Amino acid sequence: MTGPEAASGSTPVESEPLDPIATDLSAISERLAEAEADALVVVGDRFDPDLRYLSRFDAFEGRGAVVVTEDVAVISPPDAPESAARARDRFVEAAERAGIDDGIDRSVRTDASAPWVGERAASVVADLVGDDADVVVPRTLAHDAAVHLEEAGHAIASTTAVREARAVKSDAEIGRVRRAQSAAVRGMDRAAEVLADAELGPGDALELRSEGEPLSPTRLRREANAAMAFAGVDAAGNTTVRSTGATEGLGSDGDRKGGDREESDRSETLRAGEPIVIALAPRGPDGYHGALARTFVVDADGGWERRAHLAVEAAIEAAIETVDLGDPVSLLREEVAAEIGAYGFDPTLEDRTIGTTHAGGYGVGIARREPPGLASSTPLRSGTVLAVEAGVRDPDHGSVLLRELVAVRDAAAERLTERPTALAPDRY
Amino acid sequence: MTGPEAASGSTPVESEPLDPIATDLSAISERLAEAEADALVVVGDRFDPDLRYLSRFDAFEGRGAVVVTEDVAVISPPDAPESAARARDRFVEAAERAGIDDGIDRSVRTDASAPWVGERAASVVADLVGDDADVVVPRTLAHDAAVHLEEAGHAIASTTAVREARAVKSDAEIGRVRRAQSAAVRGMDRAAEVLADAELGPGDALELRSEGEPLSPTRLRREANAAMAFAGVDAAGNTTVRSTGATEGLGSDGDRKGGDREESDRSETLRAGEPIVIALAPRGPDGYHGALARTFVVDADGGWERRAHLAVEAAIEAAIETVDLGDPVSLLREEVAAEIGAYGFDPTLEDRTIGTTHAGGYGVGIARREPPGLASSTPLRSGTVLAVEAGVRDPDHGSVLLRELVAVRDAAAERLTERPTALAPDRY
Repeated sequence: MTGPEAASGSTPVESEPLDPIATDLSAISERLAEAEADALVVVGDRFDPDLRYLSRFDAFEGRGAVVVTEDVAVISPPDAPESAARARDRFVEAAERAGIDDGIDRSVRTDASAPWVGERAASVVADLVGDDADVVVPRTLAHDAAVHLEEAGHAIASTTAVREARAVKSDAEIGRVRRAQSAAVRGMDRAAEVLADAELGPGDALELRSEGEPLSPTRLRREANAAMAFAGVDAAGNTTVRSTGATEGLGSDGDRKGGDREESDRSETLRAGEPIVIALAPRGPDGYHGALARTFVVDADGGWERRAHLAVEAAIEAAIETVDLGDPVSLLREEVAAEIGAYGFDPTLEDRTIGTTHAGGYGVGIARREPPGLASSTPLRSGTVLAVEAGVRDPDHGSVLLRELVAVRDAAAERLTERPTALAPDRY
Repeated sequence: MTGPEAASGSTPVESEPLDPIATDLSAISERLAEAEADALVVVGDRFDPDLRYLSRFDAFEGRGAVVVTEDVAVISPPDAPESAARARDRFVEAAERAGIDDGIDRSVRTDASAPWVGERAASVVADLVGDDADVVVPRTLAHDAAVHLEEAGHAIASTTAVREARAVKSDAEIGRVRRAQSAAVRGMDRAAEVLADAELGPGDALELRSEGEPLSPTRLRREANAAMAFAGVDAAGNTTVRSTGATEGLGSDGDRKGGDREESDRSETLRAGEPIVIALAPRGPDGYHGALARTFVVDADGGWERRAHLAVEAAIEAAIETVDLGDPVSLLREEVAAEIGAYGFDPTLEDRTIGTTHAGGYGVGIARREPPGLASSTPLRSGTVLAVEAGVRDPDHGSVLLRELVAVRDAAAERLTERPTALAPDRY
């Protein structure tokens, strides 16, 4: 049988309704008050994490805007110079269909005759809080919108308020991350299944074959992506499948290679005895991501992979157990590195050839990676969602990488990945 | 059998290598000269269309930048204040792996100690063309980067040069669009297959069932997405499956609903006799998109759907045949509307309830929608890639929408969709 197997995709992932997502604007309102600012303005497209977070709306055609004042959020319709009225109608309809009940006034209060989103945002600010307002914006605000705000007489300053608010997730948000992660598990299950079913040879005795064809990283990625799509998430260009091992060139590391680059790996065939690193970070229906990496070896006979796998497993466990409210995020990195070192691996990456490639974690949410970062001194709070990762490399053997997803809730870190780790795909 | 069928996913889509993509910077250099500007600066993440176009690089972690002067492009490594040196190493490695041979110097010439991408871009500009340079930027340039450029003494003005360059595709680019479209066809084939295999009843005689379960739009979307993922593309949150018909509320139109919104349609079941509109716009490995929409009716018995389908088919054909080099893009819209009118449908959408919902087209490329736009007076040029669409709606019957993808090459428009249209899924 070719194509995605029935078995891996037959049951939809968690199709029970989740709690509606409410965006708590109180943290942002507090920051507005602290900064003595009158309004926050965010401009972006439907994949802009800040805009998605504030609007909970994914049907922007072009750019949209959100204006937050002390107690009201107003969404400006998207750019559509040639048909602003029609765009506005669509926008209102779609916002009504979305039906999110979080007390935010999403009504459109803007002059549709102003062609640019920044002009409309500027007039909304003037309507809500008056002329010559003090406006805060994310530093990535589009330059033209900044100019429009300033031309309208408003003063602008940058703020990290939205990024910081995003870094603390509600239970409803964690539910979305968990669902994306469940779908990532489906993708990983499918990849493991294909590897477990792979045959060897006939010419090169270490070459993996599937359905009579050489098994390429591209094929394995497509299998995983199809299983994730069937589970209701988007691979989002983030899936990487990489054959490592002694043949691996120096300089490739972990999963930095762009996920949807098919050109560069088409000719490769996966091989028995070599670590195969698979990393997934799908995006779910409400925009939240998963984060999962596993390393498999078909017919492992070397001791290095087993030792490396034990070390990174133990390092992740140690880090997760260590997590305590109020600890700096950087402690995760220290724990992972220390545990890898305790297993006899170099906790540093010397000359970019041997040692620890991944140690620590990063935030996961509407952005695939978001605060808090690896080296952050930010204290862990209830509501922090982190990818926790550990990886080692040796040019004589290859790379081993594992990545788990945890949510810090109350006092402890809760794993969002139900699947165990296993080096052998048939034991996964 | 549940899950993606073997038959629809067994053969990879066009796995032969395509020509390397070369980015022709001559059009941008000309615009620099015309504007008497010294450099163009683009800043964005890996999904920013302008940055992807200029860099051909999808492994940015965070934001990257491209600086184009009269004859050289330099990529600045991504933002990574805490580990700039490591990020730069990764960037250089990944750029080497990408191995694109278009004569662009992608070497990193920047001070990694400068934490922000705008600072690094500003120093690259100073190195290449001197202090106090005249720099042009897209209007969506991040505000912080604009401030960094200005603080470094450069003057900035906005340009549409990159968008305009993107609007004319090379054969290699059209090859990427074609491949994404071939994968979209796989997704549509799978959706049609599921609909053709659907059963009715047993309670409500018009309710569609698949594998013993009510067939929901969500399930159909997942099937299409899985088939596309297996064909090597990403659904990219753009897949919509919408049940239309007399029960459809006023105000929903075409495919405006966000593709990855699962919450709102979970309880629906697709029904016989009602038009089901499926729209796909997957993103392929090099970032280029497809655009395909079909409307199916299971057991159509009404004349309205058949007439509507004939009208929109004919309208698209008429528009494609009409296309001639030098014509304004808006002519497509006029042709589609006129043909729909000739079939007795109202070519305008009155009161947003009845009439033509889609008439015309839009550019497709690294962005799902890009110039030239629907109402554009831009002349059609060889290398223009357009989604051509026609749709009608009547609240008593539902909606019918078709969307094709064409490339204008030399004198004529070439269809990039090999599949015919058919209202009955079992004849598709």
